[in-house]
Formats: sequence, structure tokens, C-alpha cells
Amino acid sequence: MTEKLTETERADALEELAKTGWIALPDRDAIGKVFEFRSFIEAFGFMTRAALWAEKLNHHPEWSNVYKTVEVVLTTHDAGGLSELDVRLAHRMDQIAAG
Amino acid sequence: MTEKLTETERADALEELAKTGWIALPDRDAIGKVFEFRSFIEAFGFMTRAALWAEKLNHHPEWSNVYKTVEVVLTTHDAGGLSELDVRLAHRMDQIAAG
Repeated sequence: MTEKLTETERADALEELAKTGWIALPDRDAIGKVFEFRSFIEAFGFMTRAALWAEKLNHHPEWSNVYKTVEVVLTTHDAGGLSELDVRLAHRMDQIAAG
Repeated sequence: MTEKLTETERADALEELAKTGWIALPDRDAIGKVFEFRSFIEAFGFMTRAALWAEKLNHHPEWSNVYKTVEVVLTTHDAGGLSELDVRLAHRMDQIAAG
């Protein structure tokens, strides 16, 4: 079971993730980001690569897709909030989106 | 440009689609269905096959995925409501989900 980040770890992680557009959701202990691509092919290509990483990490996003846009929410249900897995998957998604 | 279904066509299509769990959304001229799978791999596998069809039809769903669940909304923005493309994609998604 993955542990929830401590307050300090959480603050540090959020500060780092804010640089690439991740925000702490106001209503849940979760982070979110909207990724915009140039086409559905690019958007779904991103999702496919991210899905493989999610399955490998055994940590899955909540996400939605409308044409060129992918909206992602990350949280760790087992931990009842943000964990290291969310931070890792967020950074990985940024890397994937950057190509 | 794809034309919106007539009222009769729309009623016939909805009656047929209701058999496999599609509903007319209360707040939009759109149809929706929640697909449940046995795993993330099956859920995302469904999305991948549906994405290829969507791109081929040049008609894309609004959809979200949380682990084993995929929630789909179909409408035709160009037509301002349901069109034949939504009906085709809905049936195709049912076929894909059925394996």
C-alpha cells in the first residue's frame, strides 16, 4: 500500500508540478492538468503511452478526452490522497506529452 | 457536413440503441453509455479500438475513463445534435465491447 505524502512532501511536489501546469484540485486531495494537442491522433497517442505506464506502475489516472484535449486527475485512492505514485505518473505524463 | 437526424429517425435510433444501454442525455442532444470491463487493460483496449474507428469515421467521442469504466457521450457538434455518425459509432462501440 502506498502512503500519502506528508504535508512537506506534498507542498514540495506541488511546487515542482505547478511549473508544468499541474494544480491541486480545490475539492479533492488530487492534482489535475489539461493537456492540449494538435489533433485527436496526438491526444490519443499520448493517452496510449500514458496508459502503458499507468499499467506498469499499477496506478491509473482518471481522465477524459474530447478531441484534442485530455484532462487528467491523479490521486491515490488507497492512500486517501496524493502519494509518490501520483507525482511519478504526473512527471511521466509531462515527459510523454513533450514527446 | 453531417445532418441532424429527423425526429422519426432519432426516435427509431434511440429505441434500437436503448437495447444495448444507450440513453438520451437529459441536458443535451446527445447519447451516453457507461461501459464496464474487467480490468484497465480491457477498458483501455476498448478505447484504443474505438479510437481507431473514431479517427477513420472522423467522428470522435467525448469520453472518460476511471480504471475499468469508460463513460461515453456521442453527439455531432457540426449538426447541433444527433446524426447518423453517432448511431454508427455507438453500434461500433457495442461491437468492440462485445469482443
